[in-house]
Amino acid sequence: MARAAGVSQSAVSRCFTPGASASPAVRKKVVEAAKRLGYRPNAMARTIITRRSGLVAIVVAVDTNLQYPEALSELSRALSRSGRRIMLFAIDAMDEIDAVVDQIWSYQVDGVVALVSLTDTQIGLLEDHDVPVVLYNRLPGKRLVSSVTCDHAMCGQLLGQHLLDGGHRRFALIHGPAFSSVASERMAGVATTLAAAGVTDIVEARGDYGYDSGVVATRELATRANLRGTAIVAANDMMALGALDEARFGFKLGVPHETVVAGFDGIGATRWQSYDLTTVRQPLQRMAEAAAAMIAERVNSGLVGERRMFPGELVVGATAPD
Amino acid sequence: MARAAGVSQSAVSRCFTPGASASPAVRKKVVEAAKRLGYRPNAMARTIITRRSGLVAIVVAVDTNLQYPEALSELSRALSRSGRRIMLFAIDAMDEIDAVVDQIWSYQVDGVVALVSLTDTQIGLLEDHDVPVVLYNRLPGKRLVSSVTCDHAMCGQLLGQHLLDGGHRRFALIHGPAFSSVASERMAGVATTLAAAGVTDIVEARGDYGYDSGVVATRELATRANLRGTAIVAANDMMALGALDEARFGFKLGVPHETVVAGFDGIGATRWQSYDLTTVRQPLQRMAEAAAAMIAERVNSGLVGERRMFPGELVVGATAPD
Repeated sequence: MARAAGVSQSAVSRCFTPGASASPAVRKKVVEAAKRLGYRPNAMARTIITRRSGLVAIVVAVDTNLQYPEALSELSRALSRSGRRIMLFAIDAMDEIDAVVDQIWSYQVDGVVALVSLTDTQIGLLEDHDVPVVLYNRLPGKRLVSSVTCDHAMCGQLLGQHLLDGGHRRFALIHGPAFSSVASERMAGVATTLAAAGVTDIVEARGDYGYDSGVVATRELATRANLRGTAIVAANDMMALGALDEARFGFKLGVPHETVVAGFDGIGATRWQSYDLTTVRQPLQRMAEAAAAMIAERVNSGLVGERRMFPGELVVGATAPD
Repeated sequence: MARAAGVSQSAVSRCFTPGASASPAVRKKVVEAAKRLGYRPNAMARTIITRRSGLVAIVVAVDTNLQYPEALSELSRALSRSGRRIMLFAIDAMDEIDAVVDQIWSYQVDGVVALVSLTDTQIGLLEDHDVPVVLYNRLPGKRLVSSVTCDHAMCGQLLGQHLLDGGHRRFALIHGPAFSSVASERMAGVATTLAAAGVTDIVEARGDYGYDSGVVATRELATRANLRGTAIVAANDMMALGALDEARFGFKLGVPHETVVAGFDGIGATRWQSYDLTTVRQPLQRMAEAAAAMIAERVNSGLVGERRMFPGELVVGATAPD
């Protein structure tokens, strides 16, 4: 191949190594030689020799994760700082995960960051073949596996306590989709704190994490409680923004004077001047850096099963001040 | 391999074929046999035989595209409907594109949808090796290549004419980042329409596509023109939302009575009750379906160089009504 192209073997290699540089002239020679020989660059051969593809697979659910691009951006930046590129597998349905795991395995990536739940079998299929897995905002099952999460239960407690401290005793909770462990951990944290304070005046509804579902849930809650004087807590910021708008424009309630509203995540829109939402922010940059560091350490040393959990940060905005 | 696993050859094959089903029991046998044999599934060998990897590479820029997840979601959905899965390459800097093109080539994907600008050389490297390329919202250079775009110049004209029809004669334009061809096509469309109507009372500023830059640009524009009675047009919705909030909360202007604001894209937040922004919506679903169809047709027939351009749709919101 190198002979056919009239270049050195290392020049050929550089053409197919992520991050390595090759001049356009060399690249052209190699491509033309490859074409003459009917040769295709074999990513597998390269990665088997170097044991590094430079790629980290990120598995996300299209619906929930792509609507929340901050986490992906931070992961991409953190992995890129450690010299890796992401290969994102966006799945529409959970039953695609098996096929994706097989693909990931066969491409011999440096590691996998999973923003969806993996079974112990799926994790095993990767880990047993030296593909390190880091669960992102998902807690491990029985199998030892590394994970990075925000302490969502504590975030819920933090927000519940903030609202109790503000004198609120009547609550309306907007839960997230049933499949979301993050949403249920958050709301369990809120519920625990309210129960410990003896608060029982609680109405509940459920949304799908989207803005519109926050609007609809707020209308539903209003049929069962007087929203005036009630603190509304949604399982994520998007639904909280919908609830806030519906309280203001649908029910003509003054926020925070007649009702207060709060959410979770700390997405960009919570800081927009129309909103200034009280929320609990996930330390996304730290979490992403931790995930990237865990992949890098695993590639070099082989430590498995580290769990890193980061606290959330209460951000007091105008919608639920002190 | 099939013999070692005690299963049929087709069962082994199904384990490594995207979309094909294999029972957990079969999968387990195959994995264990592979382990014993020191064998790794060779994605290349499979794809060389079938000429289909089932993967479509999408190349995006982290900063601009991940902040605008609607296009990615629609692309993922459309490709998944045609039985393909996306492999997303998120790049931080344009000089990474060469390395990404090599990787894409070596993984022998079914096609590439590029949301970043590719050089003719980069396109050639892919197309010359039977990897179909579809440019998304990027116009081709000299080389024949398929593309799907929104007609951004016409979108600009549409919005400019709407504002002229509303009686506006003084304009403040917030341009997008200099590297964005989409932003410059939009604003050129606006400028052409204003010039044709003899409007010369125009002040201009530039943002980076983000909300905060819309706020800052509005403050800058206010130093050079009285925003009262001026129509503010931003090159995308995010900056328009920043401009709208700053006009309302920073300059205490009534919208639309004292000033009007409009943008481009049609992102979800424009329909939130706090905003109801006048904008020109890109037909993202149609564009994504067209891109997926072009990849599928190319895999089957080999037609190169089709250009599909879709009109945008004026969405008249409360911030710049008739």
